[in-house]
Amino acid sequence: MVGGGPGAFIGGVHRAAARLDGRIDVVCGAFSQDPSKSKSMAGELFLPESRCYASHEELFAGERALPADERMDFVTIATPNVSHFAIAQKALDSGFHVMCDKPMTYSLDEARRLRQRVCETGLLFCLMHNYSAYPMVRQARLFCAAGELGTIRKVVVQYDLGWLAAPNAGKQALWRCDPRYSGVCACIGDIGTHSAHLAEYITGLAITHVCADLSTFVEGRKLDDDGTVLLRFDSGARGVIEACEVASGEENQFKIHVYGTTGSLEWSQMEPESLIWRANDQPMRVYRRSWAGMDPSLDACCRLPAGHPEGFIEGFANIYTDFARAIDARLAGESYASSYPTVDDGVRGMAFIETVLKNHQGDRKWTPLEPC
Amino acid sequence: MVGGGPGAFIGGVHRAAARLDGRIDVVCGAFSQDPSKSKSMAGELFLPESRCYASHEELFAGERALPADERMDFVTIATPNVSHFAIAQKALDSGFHVMCDKPMTYSLDEARRLRQRVCETGLLFCLMHNYSAYPMVRQARLFCAAGELGTIRKVVVQYDLGWLAAPNAGKQALWRCDPRYSGVCACIGDIGTHSAHLAEYITGLAITHVCADLSTFVEGRKLDDDGTVLLRFDSGARGVIEACEVASGEENQFKIHVYGTTGSLEWSQMEPESLIWRANDQPMRVYRRSWAGMDPSLDACCRLPAGHPEGFIEGFANIYTDFARAIDARLAGESYASSYPTVDDGVRGMAFIETVLKNHQGDRKWTPLEPC
Amino acid sequence: MVGGGPGAFIGGVHRAAARLDGRIDVVCGAFSQDPSKSKSMAGELFLPESRCYASHEELFAGERALPADERMDFVTIATPNVSHFAIAQKALDSGFHVMCDKPMTYSLDEARRLRQRVCETGLLFCLMHNYSAYPMVRQARLFCAAGELGTIRKVVVQYDLGWLAAPNAGKQALWRCDPRYSGVCACIGDIGTHSAHLAEYITGLAITHVCADLSTFVEGRKLDDDGTVLLRFDSGARGVIEACEVASGEENQFKIHVYGTTGSLEWSQMEPESLIWRANDQPMRVYRRSWAGMDPSLDACCRLPAGHPEGFIEGFANIYTDFARAIDARLAGESYASSYPTVDDGVRGMAFIETVLKNHQGDRKWTPLEPC
Amino acid sequence: MVGGGPGAFIGGVHRAAARLDGRIDVVCGAFSQDPSKSKSMAGELFLPESRCYASHEELFAGERALPADERMDFVTIATPNVSHFAIAQKALDSGFHVMCDKPMTYSLDEARRLRQRVCETGLLFCLMHNYSAYPMVRQARLFCAAGELGTIRKVVVQYDLGWLAAPNAGKQALWRCDPRYSGVCACIGDIGTHSAHLAEYITGLAITHVCADLSTFVEGRKLDDDGTVLLRFDSGARGVIEACEVASGEENQFKIHVYGTTGSLEWSQMEPESLIWRANDQPMRVYRRSWAGMDPSLDACCRLPAGHPEGFIEGFANIYTDFARAIDARLAGESYASSYPTVDDGVRGMAFIETVLKNHQGDRKWTPLEPC
Repeated sequence: MVGGGPGAFIGGVHRAAARLDGRIDVVCGAFSQDPSKSKSMAGELFLPESRCYASHEELFAGERALPADERMDFVTIATPNVSHFAIAQKALDSGFHVMCDKPMTYSLDEARRLRQRVCETGLLFCLMHNYSAYPMVRQARLFCAAGELGTIRKVVVQYDLGWLAAPNAGKQALWRCDPRYSGVCACIGDIGTHSAHLAEYITGLAITHVCADLSTFVEGRKLDDDGTVLLRFDSGARGVIEACEVASGEENQFKIHVYGTTGSLEWSQMEPESLIWRANDQPMRVYRRSWAGMDPSLDACCRLPAGHPEGFIEGFANIYTDFARAIDARLAGESYASSYPTVDDGVRGMAFIETVLKNHQGDRKWTPLEPC
Repeated sequence: MVGGGPGAFIGGVHRAAARLDGRIDVVCGAFSQDPSKSKSMAGELFLPESRCYASHEELFAGERALPADERMDFVTIATPNVSHFAIAQKALDSGFHVMCDKPMTYSLDEARRLRQRVCETGLLFCLMHNYSAYPMVRQARLFCAAGELGTIRKVVVQYDLGWLAAPNAGKQALWRCDPRYSGVCACIGDIGTHSAHLAEYITGLAITHVCADLSTFVEGRKLDDDGTVLLRFDSGARGVIEACEVASGEENQFKIHVYGTTGSLEWSQMEPESLIWRANDQPMRVYRRSWAGMDPSLDACCRLPAGHPEGFIEGFANIYTDFARAIDARLAGESYASSYPTVDDGVRGMAFIETVLKNHQGDRKWTPLEPC
Repeated sequence: MVGGGPGAFIGGVHRAAARLDGRIDVVCGAFSQDPSKSKSMAGELFLPESRCYASHEELFAGERALPADERMDFVTIATPNVSHFAIAQKALDSGFHVMCDKPMTYSLDEARRLRQRVCETGLLFCLMHNYSAYPMVRQARLFCAAGELGTIRKVVVQYDLGWLAAPNAGKQALWRCDPRYSGVCACIGDIGTHSAHLAEYITGLAITHVCADLSTFVEGRKLDDDGTVLLRFDSGARGVIEACEVASGEENQFKIHVYGTTGSLEWSQMEPESLIWRANDQPMRVYRRSWAGMDPSLDACCRLPAGHPEGFIEGFANIYTDFARAIDARLAGESYASSYPTVDDGVRGMAFIETVLKNHQGDRKWTPLEPC
Repeated sequence: MVGGGPGAFIGGVHRAAARLDGRIDVVCGAFSQDPSKSKSMAGELFLPESRCYASHEELFAGERALPADERMDFVTIATPNVSHFAIAQKALDSGFHVMCDKPMTYSLDEARRLRQRVCETGLLFCLMHNYSAYPMVRQARLFCAAGELGTIRKVVVQYDLGWLAAPNAGKQALWRCDPRYSGVCACIGDIGTHSAHLAEYITGLAITHVCADLSTFVEGRKLDDDGTVLLRFDSGARGVIEACEVASGEENQFKIHVYGTTGSLEWSQMEPESLIWRANDQPMRVYRRSWAGMDPSLDACCRLPAGHPEGFIEGFANIYTDFARAIDARLAGESYASSYPTVDDGVRGMAFIETVLKNHQGDRKWTPLEPC
């Protein structure tokens, strides 16, 4: 693992999720650029000193030097966005599969180059779009694919967080609002990409045009902390992403509605075990995780009986376990049909960010998505 | 009453709401252009034949001819939009106060002229923006005015209905989707104006610019059945109205979130008795109608103890009773501080409709609101 | 109307509900034992002085003396329980149909005698068990009758209010907690009877045995302010009523779950427009008032499209309108299939109260319901 | 670990929860009485063959024989109830700390003897009452202890599951409904003890008397599948536990309301991250996990920011991590203030079961709790 030192939020989630199903262990790391912090984290994880490295370069070299059955199987990158590309490239060059946090890179250009390198090396690359791994999100995707909604007309995504409402929002906020570490957008880069990915993932449609209004509400902040984006999809469907990180009092309010000609779906991240299905000619149905009506193919991404709440870590773990199975299959020379997000999703995400910014800065209403 | 014949939805609501508090009775009407339908409705209402009129012209003339203490005190106009202006103008010219359904007129030009006539006659004019009369909506307005949210940054309105999802949506739908009766917009005219009014009513801000994407999803339909509108307010706040009448399975899903620097509010028409208040530094609060925490000034618009559900008709009734009190005060020569929506709200609504359409038809991102 | 003077809660609800559908008007009353209060109420209602009576005796005599087409058609009794019997008996003796609030009488003995008198006079008698008139409650009854739940096994009712949590709970509370006005039980008489009636109404089963634990939590109070009652039904089904009027912070939290062999229902008075249906082999369904899935026979007790909230007053109004139709039919010599609660429901309610108290005072677990 | 072989539900939860925080690993086991199943599970867990044992006796002997720093630190017992006592006793006799699933034993007599043995050995014993480890349940306990509700008057617990509604409810159900494996009660033993524990845990009160009505709805079943129990507490508070395992359509509906003189609390296992606080003189508050208003002492049992759902496994993990810390402290010779449920909770649970059954079988209303 690269990144995820003491006090990092997402690093701990990666570790807990990786461990959950008993297929993956954290065996080594370069957890921080500060060696004492890195060692402290390694100690918490009961790692031997020899596998706590001072940098990602040393990590890859050190692990490379170990016998094949002792070295790590893949690396997780949980650093600020600015370093994703360099670390991922180095990992691939060193022969390691990569699990990378999102947004994938600092720029669309880097994203395209990373995709190129993934293709060249043939190694596995997984992007942690964790929300797409909730069982009921996957059920929503299956319903759309099966035509249960008819033709999709409109997609409405809301993602509201209060965490950046005040100027001083803590350590996590510092790098995310700093263009040197985060990229050209903050709110759109962080939760906008989750929104766009979920909209495309569930519906199977592709965004083709955007019309955006970004804001920076907190004085002195150098990147957007709010944005609303009108969408047009390749099928003719319309949509909107309303994303706000200064939404005082909101925890992690991420919702999606998909409206089709004959039915509609609603899913909310804060009640992730329910999927609401509505139609004009039927009573409302609430599909529940691990209950009747859920597609049996999804049993593999559920761990508990219905009514025993699963949550955020289980979503992450679904991606990790899927990725671990893909690596196992690769090692065994077998084929495997994975469903985790890939480098292609990462390129689309970076294209979304850069297109939204471009539109925001101009006077014309619609901007076509940057070529992916 | 003009309009509201057999089978009309909103006419019956007007009558029940008017009656609810025992201050108002329906005493006469021209309920339909079809005399037999009008008579049938008059019969249902136990009206004497003499006060069932064949047209609004006859209604005003007939009532005018009655002694002052026998004639009607005001007229309710519940006809398709196209005739609001002519009827309202005639009513004013005949010396009657007017309660008018929304949108106020067929065009912005008519709206301005109607405002002019209201000013000239000095008569009372009330526009039925019923949603603004729910007690918890009024509480939201009081919270905003008192600075409980700090400075308002963002307003998010969603209004989703499934009723027009299919091509054949019944009698009510016919005139609403017909540009000859409805005006230049359908969805934006019907629920878009409710949304814009509520956003301005609660926040006390004024919309200054819009950026809109309208759609007509049902083939052959001549007006919009969906629209999303980015908003800018006079204070610098941003917003979005997502309005859709082809949202399969949605009943009357009308929600608003208002985000300020220090707190936020959420209200939903389908659970109208709750007002959710959130902040980063407090547990969430749910204010409930007629419960502790509600402003005592609102007792006058509540009828039942908390937990005994009030609903849609009570909202309408709050407007009616306010209007009745204003008329009583006028008759008594007293002053009265009313809070019902007026002809000015009607002009703003029509300006909103025409500006949204203008923006939609162009390529530029932002269009300033038509002068009101 | 007898009772319902200034400051009375339920009297105003009766009037608004009676008026709502335009079939009934309040035409006379003896609103209070205090003549000035009675006059004041009559004034608010724009009644002529001649029809504001000093007592119920004068009311019945005065109305009796009017020509048939001018006198009132029925009387509503909205006084404290202690006087229901005498007033109702007098009304019947004077030839008036009766709408009576619940619990029906002060004692079971009175209830049986009142039933006897109703039989003898052949007049119509309606008991205001308003909760049974919510459309979704009626839908629940239809589902049970149609066997949609299979055989019913268990019925769970909760009714929690906070209004009596403090010793001083206002004027309404005074008479309700005073055995001279209220009867032998307070909490069980007030909300316990609602609970028992709803359980029997929805399921079609009859309570046969009870096992009760009553409490008086507020010092100095002379009647129960809390009670929990285990139930056995004639079919072998089991149940429980949990009723509490000192449930701090609860508004009017009245819920019922009915569990059958193949499905279950949940309904909650504070969200009265939804009826939740669950089964082990189906996704959860939420039936909504005036939406697909509701029995067409219930259209007659709905006024608005789905999503336009109806509430407490509409439930009352459904009883009133049903009663008004029954009276109309009687006047017209036609037959009419009413569904309002009757004097028999009132007798059962009083039997429930007295049996619960008897069980509570003894040491044996089960007590059979007093003969009705 | 003893038990938790292939197909067992709760064994997998124990393992995932133990692993979650990176402090505990499964290092050995006797997972099934069928050696091939036990081996298969050991293989899934990547355990060396040498540490997959054929029986719990061999497990304890084998581990005992290992050097102290290689042997397991404690054993988890996740077998049917009937064998808990023998295995736990053997574990204690072999010098191992014990984590035991609930109900603790087959009978109250066993429970008392086990407590005796725990005292004699001085070893640590933890009972997996996982629901008490949800952060918002702990917050509820803190609120009660701090007097935020005033004096507690009433406790209402509901626990409804549909899983035993049909005669054939799968493998899990077989032993639970078999008196040879489960004990004298099924529903009361399984979810009744969870309910009683939660009621006492949150309020700090002790149940002193019960009055119970148990049912066996499914023909041929030998133990109760439903029960309702009236409660009296040592403080004079009253309560009720409504528990049902044939509640068709319910997933794992476990709710508690606590009513005090000045406020009340509501918590629901299916929305475990919210704790609702109500009072007559305040707006409702919803306390949320990891949000403002939560006691800082609870940070240690939360892993994610608010709005990132935690669930069932995290609750289990809180118990495991607390137990692991207690063992660490013991090894280090340090003192440690644990909060996990102990053998004393287990004795109370068994006393509850046997008292409920005794009351159910008699005719008298109240039975005092068996001496603990």
